Amino acid sequence: MRESVYIKYLRTIQGASRDVLKGIGDDTAVVRVPKGLCVLTTDTLLDGTHFRLKDTGPRELGRKAVASSLSDVAAMGCRATLALISVAFPHSTPMRFARRLARGLNDTAARYGVTVVGGDTVTGRGPLLINVTVFGVADGLRPVLRSGARAGDTVMVTGRLGGSILGRHLRFEPRLEEAVYLNKNYRLHSMIDISDGLSLDLAHILEESDVGAIMYKDRIPVSRAAHRLARKTGKTPLYHALSDGEDYELLFTLSRPQAERLAKKNPLNIPLTVIGHVRRDNVKGLYLRDEAGRLRRIKPEGYEHV
Amino acid sequence: MRESVYIKYLRTIQGASRDVLKGIGDDTAVVRVPKGLCVLTTDTLLDGTHFRLKDTGPRELGRKAVASSLSDVAAMGCRATLALISVAFPHSTPMRFARRLARGLNDTAARYGVTVVGGDTVTGRGPLLINVTVFGVADGLRPVLRSGARAGDTVMVTGRLGGSILGRHLRFEPRLEEAVYLNKNYRLHSMIDISDGLSLDLAHILEESDVGAIMYKDRIPVSRAAHRLARKTGKTPLYHALSDGEDYELLFTLSRPQAERLAKKNPLNIPLTVIGHVRRDNVKGLYLRDEAGRLRRIKPEGYEHV
Repeated sequence: MRESVYIKYLRTIQGASRDVLKGIGDDTAVVRVPKGLCVLTTDTLLDGTHFRLKDTGPRELGRKAVASSLSDVAAMGCRATLALISVAFPHSTPMRFARRLARGLNDTAARYGVTVVGGDTVTGRGPLLINVTVFGVADGLRPVLRSGARAGDTVMVTGRLGGSILGRHLRFEPRLEEAVYLNKNYRLHSMIDISDGLSLDLAHILEESDVGAIMYKDRIPVSRAAHRLARKTGKTPLYHALSDGEDYELLFTLSRPQAERLAKKNPLNIPLTVIGHVRRDNVKGLYLRDEAGRLRRIKPEGYEHV
Repeated sequence: MRESVYIKYLRTIQGASRDVLKGIGDDTAVVRVPKGLCVLTTDTLLDGTHFRLKDTGPRELGRKAVASSLSDVAAMGCRATLALISVAFPHSTPMRFARRLARGLNDTAARYGVTVVGGDTVTGRGPLLINVTVFGVADGLRPVLRSGARAGDTVMVTGRLGGSILGRHLRFEPRLEEAVYLNKNYRLHSMIDISDGLSLDLAHILEESDVGAIMYKDRIPVSRAAHRLARKTGKTPLYHALSDGEDYELLFTLSRPQAERLAKKNPLNIPLTVIGHVRRDNVKGLYLRDEAGRLRRIKPEGYEHV
């Protein structure tokens, strides 16, 4: 493929927005940004590390690259508005493949109200690499950090967890709408999206907040995919729910009264589960409590790319 | 190298800024942005395409990756404030190399008043790839587009051009300060930074502005490096000044009275030269006028990565 031909194609599929004064085609994009707090995140997917091209079509790969960055904005309780997308193509990439990837990238952005305002296209001797940078706005809300969990907080999670490798890692919905709704209507103390795996991502919250937590073994929402995967791996479905990465669900903490109000109402169209609480006794680390009330410290395990 | 060790290192060298509420270490960075127009740009450097690792040290490579993105913000006459930097390392990268690259990246950002607020680090089977996204603010000024050149405009350029491959492509100064000064004090109609080469970048302005231009052959500021390079290549120094890429100087157009005022005063500490004008007769394309007044249409040539 030739870069210049691909870039011309990108200009034809470029979306528009009232707040984008100049998109692709100048030295930089020019955008109008509301005063206040904004969020910025970037995510790279590399063939052979984060996906295998032979197992993944270009459209679904584009979808995933954008959706996983959007999930990071969701994890802050913020609204994603703009994206910059850079792709390094191997020299041998057919234009047909490049166009399909671009469609996967742009359609996904558009679907979530995000305008692609720029990027960079290079070709070289490396494997396919996709870098997505997303810009978002807080709209007057407070971005929800990992570091705000407090003693006594209830720990909640959206969706059902585990086994996403069986397909959901390509089809997940970034929880943008849900996250903004929660941030607007509840006083969230901390939040993260589950990309590394429930136990590891909860450990990130605990570490940044300098607290410990107890998860209730019988309350973890285990997905059907986790059950199916467990039959293949010989591990338990719970293991997969705790340790598998790429669920892209929201994991958050809030005060017990707030959590009770939320759990009672469940205003979202997706499962919402109380799975544990932040310890009040100042003991750090992550613990799993079984049905008999026994506590076991667990070493956070999760999906780490090697 | 291990990603987690590298990321810990990044957190130790991370800069601070009053407007950065959260840098590395959460799902996204959280920043305070002034109301108004902002600019966003991203640039990718790939080993084997944009540089050769065996010819370039990690620190100077980091410097170049950041400086070339900053040059894009300069080309808009805007102030760069934030950066997100992603690196894909080959598996075999020694930590020592990675740290030096990180220093080159961060020191350069800091030097130009830019805070690195995030990024992504991956390792894989590909060659080294560096992606730098820069965010900038217009500070109430109007970002200078490529598309604003008008009939009769004077064409001006900073610095001296050509032969940057002999060293300056690694040591150039992004003209941020100069660009903001010019944008503040003169009514610039169009601007670009010279990355592809003078004639090709001027052609970009002409195309986006739908005008033609005449350059004065004897007025092109030819660098000493262009002369040195010409002795090796057998081409003329002028050829190199017109066609070599990576000068990272500012190329801009403004009305003749404005240009005369600027040329007379030259308030910058670098050369500033009138090199041509935008045609009034509606003839498109790029022309070179020699000392005898003869016009020759030139096909914009420049450095294109293949």
